[in-house]
Amino acid sequence: MDLGLLYSGGKDSSLAALLLSAFYDVTLVTARFGITDDWRHAERAAEGTAFDFRPLELDRAVAEAAVERMLEDGYPRNGIQQVHVHALERLAGEEFNAVADGTRRDDRVPSVSRARAQSLEDRHGVDYVAPLSGFGRGAVDGLVEENLTVEVGPSESIERADYEAELRALLAERAGAEAVADVFPDHEQTSVTGFRSR
Amino acid sequence: MDLGLLYSGGKDSSLAALLLSAFYDVTLVTARFGITDDWRHAERAAEGTAFDFRPLELDRAVAEAAVERMLEDGYPRNGIQQVHVHALERLAGEEFNAVADGTRRDDRVPSVSRARAQSLEDRHGVDYVAPLSGFGRGAVDGLVEENLTVEVGPSESIERADYEAELRALLAERAGAEAVADVFPDHEQTSVTGFRSR
Repeated sequence: MDLGLLYSGGKDSSLAALLLSAFYDVTLVTARFGITDDWRHAERAAEGTAFDFRPLELDRAVAEAAVERMLEDGYPRNGIQQVHVHALERLAGEEFNAVADGTRRDDRVPSVSRARAQSLEDRHGVDYVAPLSGFGRGAVDGLVEENLTVEVGPSESIERADYEAELRALLAERAGAEAVADVFPDHEQTSVTGFRSR
Repeated sequence: MDLGLLYSGGKDSSLAALLLSAFYDVTLVTARFGITDDWRHAERAAEGTAFDFRPLELDRAVAEAAVERMLEDGYPRNGIQQVHVHALERLAGEEFNAVADGTRRDDRVPSVSRARAQSLEDRHGVDYVAPLSGFGRGAVDGLVEENLTVEVGPSESIERADYEAELRALLAERAGAEAVADVFPDHEQTSVTGFRSR
């Protein structure tokens, strides 16, 4: 069965790819708005794996609305959630039998409720799977350490292809660099530099 | 890492074993109260796999309390949940690095909330993982069809080692066969007869 996995080049989506690869033909899919070229970081990470890779075009209007929401809120959570849902909808409209993302049990955002998952499946005739949603932080960290080689650092310095990089760029364009610092709290991101041979 | 998986011999816990086996040394663990020998069905199913197997002793007082609860409620959900939580606590007290069960996204019971999972992990110093909790019915059915050979039938006729069989026996002892029919609605169970070579 063909499965499309939303892929950021970070540790969670990379670990999700490994978990799913025992059962599905996994394609790594990186969503992009066309605002920056940050998706290239995911493409490079994917080149180090045995998985196919492709970009997925998102609707720029969704990025604009998400940035507006972040500016209103003063924090990124709801805007990120809107973009993630949009990316899943786009992915489910592709020709895969199943679609997936790397959301973990302890993630506050993005989160895909049981009802939303069922709705996505029913409307698009696909399975939606979240292979890490039953894994907590400790389990994920242990599996990452055993199975991936990872670079860790603050969000703004790590090369990462999440649509977050594009949202930050759009936010800076609209409201200046200070707005980006205000909206996005400091947090560490990871960038996967390789999969250990298994 | 050593992982103990609550194993009933049914399709969900068998599929969970396959998913986890890429990352953990999985031991299939079947909980038993000592009321009946139904756990032997799981032992037989496990013999057809490459996984280690062991039984896990539960506290008979928990079975008694669960059956009381089912009789009061008129349905089995809360009693089953009590027993499942007890089984996870016992399993987490063994020497495994991680413990797991086969709960799916669409299961109403048993269910392990994020808070309960975190509490189990913190108190016992283990990881708790629920590898199927991000998989819906369609995805599970597809993976089972591709990876397991399965026998399907009504709960009362399928050989299955779930503690449900022991709870039914205790319920019959306490309140008669009609009480079992009243409390447990008809539903199909599955019994795994083999793992496809992969």
